[in-house]
Amino acid sequence: MNTIIPHSKHPRIVVIGGGFGGIEFCKKLKNKNYQIVLIDKHNYHTFQPLLYQVATGGLEAESIAFPLRKIFKGQDNLIFRVAKVNKVDTQNNLLHTTIGEIAYDYLVIATGSTSNFFGQENIERNSMPMKSIPEALNLRSIILQNLESALIAPTIEEKNELLNFVVVGGGPTGVETAGALGELKKHVLPNDYPELDLNSVNIFLVEGSDKLLSTMSANSSKKSKEFLEEMGVNVMLNTRVENYDGKTLFLIDQQPIHSATVIWSAGVKGVILDGFSSDSITRGNRLIVDGTSKVKGYSNVYAIGDVAAMILDDYPNGHPGVAQVAIQQGKNLAKLFATHTLNSSTIFKYNDKGSMATVGRNRAVVDLNKIRFQGIFAWFTWMFVHLMTLAGFRNKLVVFVNWVWSYISYDRGTRLIIRSYDKKTRNVNTH
Amino acid sequence: MNTIIPHSKHPRIVVIGGGFGGIEFCKKLKNKNYQIVLIDKHNYHTFQPLLYQVATGGLEAESIAFPLRKIFKGQDNLIFRVAKVNKVDTQNNLLHTTIGEIAYDYLVIATGSTSNFFGQENIERNSMPMKSIPEALNLRSIILQNLESALIAPTIEEKNELLNFVVVGGGPTGVETAGALGELKKHVLPNDYPELDLNSVNIFLVEGSDKLLSTMSANSSKKSKEFLEEMGVNVMLNTRVENYDGKTLFLIDQQPIHSATVIWSAGVKGVILDGFSSDSITRGNRLIVDGTSKVKGYSNVYAIGDVAAMILDDYPNGHPGVAQVAIQQGKNLAKLFATHTLNSSTIFKYNDKGSMATVGRNRAVVDLNKIRFQGIFAWFTWMFVHLMTLAGFRNKLVVFVNWVWSYISYDRGTRLIIRSYDKKTRNVNTH
Repeated sequence: MNTIIPHSKHPRIVVIGGGFGGIEFCKKLKNKNYQIVLIDKHNYHTFQPLLYQVATGGLEAESIAFPLRKIFKGQDNLIFRVAKVNKVDTQNNLLHTTIGEIAYDYLVIATGSTSNFFGQENIERNSMPMKSIPEALNLRSIILQNLESALIAPTIEEKNELLNFVVVGGGPTGVETAGALGELKKHVLPNDYPELDLNSVNIFLVEGSDKLLSTMSANSSKKSKEFLEEMGVNVMLNTRVENYDGKTLFLIDQQPIHSATVIWSAGVKGVILDGFSSDSITRGNRLIVDGTSKVKGYSNVYAIGDVAAMILDDYPNGHPGVAQVAIQQGKNLAKLFATHTLNSSTIFKYNDKGSMATVGRNRAVVDLNKIRFQGIFAWFTWMFVHLMTLAGFRNKLVVFVNWVWSYISYDRGTRLIIRSYDKKTRNVNTH
Repeated sequence: MNTIIPHSKHPRIVVIGGGFGGIEFCKKLKNKNYQIVLIDKHNYHTFQPLLYQVATGGLEAESIAFPLRKIFKGQDNLIFRVAKVNKVDTQNNLLHTTIGEIAYDYLVIATGSTSNFFGQENIERNSMPMKSIPEALNLRSIILQNLESALIAPTIEEKNELLNFVVVGGGPTGVETAGALGELKKHVLPNDYPELDLNSVNIFLVEGSDKLLSTMSANSSKKSKEFLEEMGVNVMLNTRVENYDGKTLFLIDQQPIHSATVIWSAGVKGVILDGFSSDSITRGNRLIVDGTSKVKGYSNVYAIGDVAAMILDDYPNGHPGVAQVAIQQGKNLAKLFATHTLNSSTIFKYNDKGSMATVGRNRAVVDLNKIRFQGIFAWFTWMFVHLMTLAGFRNKLVVFVNWVWSYISYDRGTRLIIRSYDKKTRNVNTH
């Protein structure tokens, strides 16, 4: 029946998603007696922490993407397929995918998360998300297209609309994106657009709560705001978004902002496939899993990373949606498979190594277990950790070259509208 | 009237196209008493000689594209606009563009060339061109998508169709592309697709005449064929294409080839805007120009590079469509403007520095004025010359890193389906 996957005498684990969790899980089962089938809609792994640099013209997309086939080179028990899963039939242990049906003995959901617009369709239709490489490239095109359009805008209103950039959400992605836009304004625009009055270019960071980086230390929250303001970003705390029509961002109890570019980083939700019982789904559209990553209500289905909500005493809302959680959960689950201890009562223990965010040149915040620091040393730490965790030597080198180059030249080399994006039709120009 | 371009007291030269010729022309008029308006549909200059490496997963698109605004940083007399010109109104010295009307005192056409399908609509619809970065990225996606699809093809016929790659046209682009596909087959596919029988992957290079690289020396023609055959490419000389329906490539007096991927590099034609008299157009859809680059029948319109046919005694068909001609014509014309000698009888003199083509690792052919050589030294020469002529230090570095990396690892790092391409709808996936 399943001619699209070769037969194997070993039990088959199908893993959906080649993110941090999925690849860690697969790698750790090398040479084990399982047939592992990895499915992803892309043929590459995305290093999500640097998406914002692709979107703001600092890095080429190819430097933060890594071919999945290359990661598993020589891993004989792994089959990779590019496909999108339409539906899970948990009764018959079967996936319905864009390339046909795929049966499984065990299923590991590692589909990650996507932008959460909290049901606000207007905002979803008109703002720019940044959770995948194509989305980051669309955003890059839109930012640059708007700058070009501003030069020839027929009215001052339209011009201002094109030159106001709003980032919604003060988490790490929002802070980093706003910071990168600040650098673009300060170092690139004066050279590239001498015709533009820089005072009319405004960058806003809108956050609903009373602080940025709310999962980090109070000092990091405070410092990141200071850094952003030094870089000319208007940080608006305690500000909630009401609606966005593509031209005007309406705020609750505040003046609206006229802007053609609203970047949405205000929340994520799990990517859950059709076919799961609503009993197994909790807040943030995540699958409820036990301490071994097993999904509630199913005997052979597991979930790891952003899509999983592992409610434990010390994590009553599940773990944070970061790469380290996905990696550690993937490793842990692989170990349970490898040692045939899936039914043990061992509970996953998250080793929180800390968190960090960069705001701009020489400006970052780092919270480790015991130490917290901000500024230039934090910035170098941030760069070092990101370089080291990036997959592949070639990618490390290309990113390193770009960063050194940007540091010396104050430049962002990839400010290219490679395929122009039409927000209305959501199409990309292919010529 | 023209609010989209600021007023200037100097005469306005509008240049259409930021290719090799266009940018050379503009740069040479820095600080001269002209207002120069450069129009391009992209915001970057494309280094066309390396497009085939982007298409075959050897380089990131961003490394061969360079922001036009950056090239002209600090050139106060230049205005750049991203726009497409719909029509030229030579009577009123006016361009109709996607951003509005633009008046000119002088017009310089540097629009370059595009694929020539010689009126064969079926071939145009079903084959892949490679004359721009988006087209090269579409081709990259299609090559990789076809490999993925081959793994799950329901019949052996469909599988073979997906694994037969045909390049039509034995000029430098065709030779280089076929060679790069040969390397992909030899060094990358065995690791990436252990499920595939490599013997079923076939690369064809189809050429109508009796030799490859017909503009180069006899020795280079012969050697390039040998190199390609060593690399497993089926070189078919004296073979003419009749039709292509997307599945079968029909050849005149020969067996057809079943292939889902036909790459078209069999000819180019000039990109001429609407509005020119047919009297000024000649073979290859080029504008007839005199020895000063002035277009026949017009007093203030000039054409340089691929779109120009400068018929001289030693070049009865015009000059070859290479970067050097465009650069030298751009420089020459700029000099005539700068010295106010547009009406002089000085005739452009092309300084032919030679030509070269690379076939693969350690294999290239170089014809200089006096010396001709092939093999590893030619290959290093080719790389050196291309690196040096690439715009921008960052791009040089990134390309260099990629090449050194590929040389050491036998790898091609950017084999990524960044935005999957649908040949039928001609759409790109934006998520």
